Amino acid sequence: MSKIPVAVLGATGTVGQKFIVLLQNHPNFEIRELVASERSAGKGYAEVCSWKQNEFIPDSVRGMTVKSTDDPLESRILFSGLDSSVAGPIEENYASAGHIVISNSKNHRMDANVPLVIPEINHQHFDLTKKQPYKGAIITNSNCSTMFLAMVLAPIHLAFGVELVQVTTMQAITGAGYPGVPSIDILGNVVPYIGGEEDKLESEPQKILGTLQDDRILPAPFKISAQCNRVPVFDGHTETLSLKLKNKVGPAEVAKVLASFRGYPQEHHLPSAPEQPILVLTEPDRPQPARDVWKNGGMSALVGRIRECSVLDLKMVILGHNTVRGAAGAAVLNAETYIDLGYLEE
Amino acid sequence: MSKIPVAVLGATGTVGQKFIVLLQNHPNFEIRELVASERSAGKGYAEVCSWKQNEFIPDSVRGMTVKSTDDPLESRILFSGLDSSVAGPIEENYASAGHIVISNSKNHRMDANVPLVIPEINHQHFDLTKKQPYKGAIITNSNCSTMFLAMVLAPIHLAFGVELVQVTTMQAITGAGYPGVPSIDILGNVVPYIGGEEDKLESEPQKILGTLQDDRILPAPFKISAQCNRVPVFDGHTETLSLKLKNKVGPAEVAKVLASFRGYPQEHHLPSAPEQPILVLTEPDRPQPARDVWKNGGMSALVGRIRECSVLDLKMVILGHNTVRGAAGAAVLNAETYIDLGYLEE
Amino acid sequence: MSKIPVAVLGATGTVGQKFIVLLQNHPNFEIRELVASERSAGKGYAEVCSWKQNEFIPDSVRGMTVKSTDDPLESRILFSGLDSSVAGPIEENYASAGHIVISNSKNHRMDANVPLVIPEINHQHFDLTKKQPYKGAIITNSNCSTMFLAMVLAPIHLAFGVELVQVTTMQAITGAGYPGVPSIDILGNVVPYIGGEEDKLESEPQKILGTLQDDRILPAPFKISAQCNRVPVFDGHTETLSLKLKNKVGPAEVAKVLASFRGYPQEHHLPSAPEQPILVLTEPDRPQPARDVWKNGGMSALVGRIRECSVLDLKMVILGHNTVRGAAGAAVLNAETYIDLGYLEE
Amino acid sequence: MSKIPVAVLGATGTVGQKFIVLLQNHPNFEIRELVASERSAGKGYAEVCSWKQNEFIPDSVRGMTVKSTDDPLESRILFSGLDSSVAGPIEENYASAGHIVISNSKNHRMDANVPLVIPEINHQHFDLTKKQPYKGAIITNSNCSTMFLAMVLAPIHLAFGVELVQVTTMQAITGAGYPGVPSIDILGNVVPYIGGEEDKLESEPQKILGTLQDDRILPAPFKISAQCNRVPVFDGHTETLSLKLKNKVGPAEVAKVLASFRGYPQEHHLPSAPEQPILVLTEPDRPQPARDVWKNGGMSALVGRIRECSVLDLKMVILGHNTVRGAAGAAVLNAETYIDLGYLEE
Repeated sequence: MSKIPVAVLGATGTVGQKFIVLLQNHPNFEIRELVASERSAGKGYAEVCSWKQNEFIPDSVRGMTVKSTDDPLESRILFSGLDSSVAGPIEENYASAGHIVISNSKNHRMDANVPLVIPEINHQHFDLTKKQPYKGAIITNSNCSTMFLAMVLAPIHLAFGVELVQVTTMQAITGAGYPGVPSIDILGNVVPYIGGEEDKLESEPQKILGTLQDDRILPAPFKISAQCNRVPVFDGHTETLSLKLKNKVGPAEVAKVLASFRGYPQEHHLPSAPEQPILVLTEPDRPQPARDVWKNGGMSALVGRIRECSVLDLKMVILGHNTVRGAAGAAVLNAETYIDLGYLEE
Repeated sequence: MSKIPVAVLGATGTVGQKFIVLLQNHPNFEIRELVASERSAGKGYAEVCSWKQNEFIPDSVRGMTVKSTDDPLESRILFSGLDSSVAGPIEENYASAGHIVISNSKNHRMDANVPLVIPEINHQHFDLTKKQPYKGAIITNSNCSTMFLAMVLAPIHLAFGVELVQVTTMQAITGAGYPGVPSIDILGNVVPYIGGEEDKLESEPQKILGTLQDDRILPAPFKISAQCNRVPVFDGHTETLSLKLKNKVGPAEVAKVLASFRGYPQEHHLPSAPEQPILVLTEPDRPQPARDVWKNGGMSALVGRIRECSVLDLKMVILGHNTVRGAAGAAVLNAETYIDLGYLEE
Repeated sequence: MSKIPVAVLGATGTVGQKFIVLLQNHPNFEIRELVASERSAGKGYAEVCSWKQNEFIPDSVRGMTVKSTDDPLESRILFSGLDSSVAGPIEENYASAGHIVISNSKNHRMDANVPLVIPEINHQHFDLTKKQPYKGAIITNSNCSTMFLAMVLAPIHLAFGVELVQVTTMQAITGAGYPGVPSIDILGNVVPYIGGEEDKLESEPQKILGTLQDDRILPAPFKISAQCNRVPVFDGHTETLSLKLKNKVGPAEVAKVLASFRGYPQEHHLPSAPEQPILVLTEPDRPQPARDVWKNGGMSALVGRIRECSVLDLKMVILGHNTVRGAAGAAVLNAETYIDLGYLEE
Repeated sequence: MSKIPVAVLGATGTVGQKFIVLLQNHPNFEIRELVASERSAGKGYAEVCSWKQNEFIPDSVRGMTVKSTDDPLESRILFSGLDSSVAGPIEENYASAGHIVISNSKNHRMDANVPLVIPEINHQHFDLTKKQPYKGAIITNSNCSTMFLAMVLAPIHLAFGVELVQVTTMQAITGAGYPGVPSIDILGNVVPYIGGEEDKLESEPQKILGTLQDDRILPAPFKISAQCNRVPVFDGHTETLSLKLKNKVGPAEVAKVLASFRGYPQEHHLPSAPEQPILVLTEPDRPQPARDVWKNGGMSALVGRIRECSVLDLKMVILGHNTVRGAAGAAVLNAETYIDLGYLEE
């Protein structure tokens, strides 16, 4: 079977580069087109890209001529790592022209008819694309910190009902892209503020865990309070959670529910699906970003230190790879799921 | 007026070294004796100490012969930076022999008749020493993370009543002493666990904010839930707080109460007292350890980002210098206050 | 064909752990025995080992009962990651008992009858084992900083004659083992001293590049001056070199000689052999440890910035993975080469 | 005596900010004017400056209205921390208008009639200003890495004659200004390249140590080969040196010459002069940036590990504070010396 041709939008940025790394040996997708800003268009990819990945630039894209966002694209599936300063209208244009835009950008996430999907949780929301005014569609994944919070809340909410969530994040520098955080600001430091991040953490999970009813999403009713920090870590967002649950349960039961969580991507053995979406670690001092972020290829949420909380009900530590499952990898899994569900043929 | 001779116990350790730095130009105290383990006793200080401070070793102590904990001491005031593995009985022995032990060790902090004091908050608790079975006394300061939490809770509790506290810490490596945290464990990493730390944070503030009644402390009735992390920061513990208050108030009122907080050390202009025990920063991304930890000589708690919390009532970020106000500096201020209150003459 | 059973000595240490990671899917070797100190002997591996690798402990060794160095071993091939404080006599005992000890320890490296081998350079030196007074043999690889210096000097020396070498190293913290460097000493710091390291760098390359003559090694005649620094890098030793050559050549010719360097492991397609022992990077700011250390699985030396030197003849930057090709990986490749050369059958 | 009014050019940049910190309590200078780009002009300093210093913004400048480089200035002495992209013509304009421009920018350093001065070494070069075509003058200090190399070479060259110099630098991130080095590029990394830096290190010291003859500088005749690296250190450039000397001497003699080095600023007790321009440390593992960079207020060069070199003659490690003596502090000391020598009155 021949591979599905895809394009990467924002191909020279950090998310774009991660798309290229994740797609280079993909069994179903093949990068056919690279799209970047006007400044890079018409030139060879290696020439215009300040490549920051540890892997070599794949030979298959090294010499590929970069297209501009004005050029027509032949690929139906577009992976968008466009900067949020420009992603909004560009993604709409592509969707209008019939493309399926699998976007990591924040611009359309909270739009009423745009699905914000973690395929293990709410692939049913893909149905929203049928209500979109486009010939194609826009599909989004969440913010990188939201991703792991929502993944962990999902099975707990389903089993026991989440009522309140306190979360403090310690986020990696790669979450800010390139050049991103100046080293003078973060070396040996903690910056207790990330612009706009707390808002996303406090609202995106409710949409993801919401119910699709009459063509709209009814957000899950729990409340989240977030405090976001940048720390001198390369990859991996760590988050401390405290939860209040409707049905009181102990840490052991929660651990069991988390470890046994599975969804559509696992059941259908999709290429990028981790065997376990959530990995529960039992060592007293884990998960740790420098040690655990690449477990399961960076596609799982990791959870540790599940214990009782004297203020709410339960506390725990979660971790995830912000540029893999928290960004490009999430988009790739969204595409795999969307296609596997047969939406492309409709 | 001649200076009061003092001894430093555990003089070669990191807290002991910080005592030496803080006391080297002290207007009232003069280091007369240095005490360390049997292994170092009888030798010159510079010879046995692996000095880790940025300042040069003061000439006044460089060649001082180190005493062992078995040697009798002539100083009445002893600053103890002894390791908790040995501090318990040694401090008791010194107190029995008539010394005033100003201790930074955790061993006796929670003892019923040992005052756990932040002099801006509860200097009245010094009265507990009268009930101690010693000719001398043992006085303690809190754990380094507790210190800044308690300093910030104090004026808020007094003004509005604290009911619930959620705190996540991001603690500096110097909090673990030397050799402390191996670099392999913390470079570019977050370790979401510090042995015993959460227990201290969840119980010490209630004692400090408790009321002395019939010769015992009635702990303050609020509940604290703590999550402690080690981060690759040199000096300065950062903490995110979320509070539920009895009397609802807005961030501005809390900021005002914090900024105007003063106590005995300020009113009596004690040498180590910061002008403001609590410094409220208004920039959106402060306080930061690498930038702010030395403000007010490391003797103040810093607070920023005071804002509403959608789960409890208020959120904020706090910071303090873990080895200055969080350890040696706290002990020095305790000694200054205790003496200024006239306890030595009783 | 069944795999060759091997044992790992010092299995709980950092080099021992790396042996376990590198050998877990090895086509020819199978870990049959794990050996550690008396304290760990008799217990399950996972129970006694403070595992610090990013990979999970392989299931095949997780429950394996650790042996002590007094226990007889059934494996003929022993990979030794023993600490140098004990490696000397223990390795001799095993060799006397007929085992082939493939050692990463420094103890026997400079012994006259012990080969110090980089198989791309001097596999002929394995013949020294025939002169050893053991029923078995001891084979060593170099110090982690020496490794990459020697690998780069080899083809240059062969082609143009090396006369003088100036080298300054910037070495990763993992080079010091665990717990190794305290974080207080290295976070945001450079330590311009590593005990014993400069001596090794100034003497080991000459033995490796020496000629075997009448059963002894005639060291290569060039002089090396080394300055060693520890830097806050996790994996990867970076070194700046300046060389004086007998036959003057330009940077381009040297680059060509380096990039085309191949040896026995490449020619015989040994399992752990990198395709290119030396990878020449052409970007102006490479190699960099955080970006390049895992290129070719950590088994190659990386070279960049080859240019003229106004004091000697040529300057360049080199880099290598200190715990892979610089330690455990070097030993594994030594074993593969030794066996492929037929020594075991003699 | 009233203070001399001065202006700071490039006042919002990192060097400009450091000027403000160093001048805030200066006994002779008083900041009267702040100059920045058109974008900031006309606004209050605190409003336009992204203040990155650990000290609070001095009250004396906080509300000062920023001037543009087109505004006439009343101060005769101007401290220039202008970015090199604009410093060239602006500094010339100010000099033409009669101002004494004390510049930290690289633009005019190597101009034949511009003195490049370290006042302990070559204050005689100030005489070059008499040959400048300006009503005022331009005076420069060296690059931050050059500074400490030249300071250390000076007494050695005078006493024993320097012939060859090999230097490898490990430079702090603050040397690149703000935003400077992206954290993604340097966290846990070494970047073995700093654009233009090696050229400066290989040519500036010869001008500084050159002799003024017939109104021009005859550069000192030794050769330098430099290799420059960026490391994850906040403040402090560390450099490993290897030297060939005309007159062979041992490490002890060199240490003596370095430690006893004094110059005009010391002899005339200038306010910013360190008591010892060069501090020789005897511990085997010093100097270290995180521990020693603030010794003598950051105004001295620190030297350690002076020992023999098997390739050239002597090796050592040097360190200095790149933004204090390596930049703003150097300019302030230049101004103090220039004025003390009476040039202003001529």
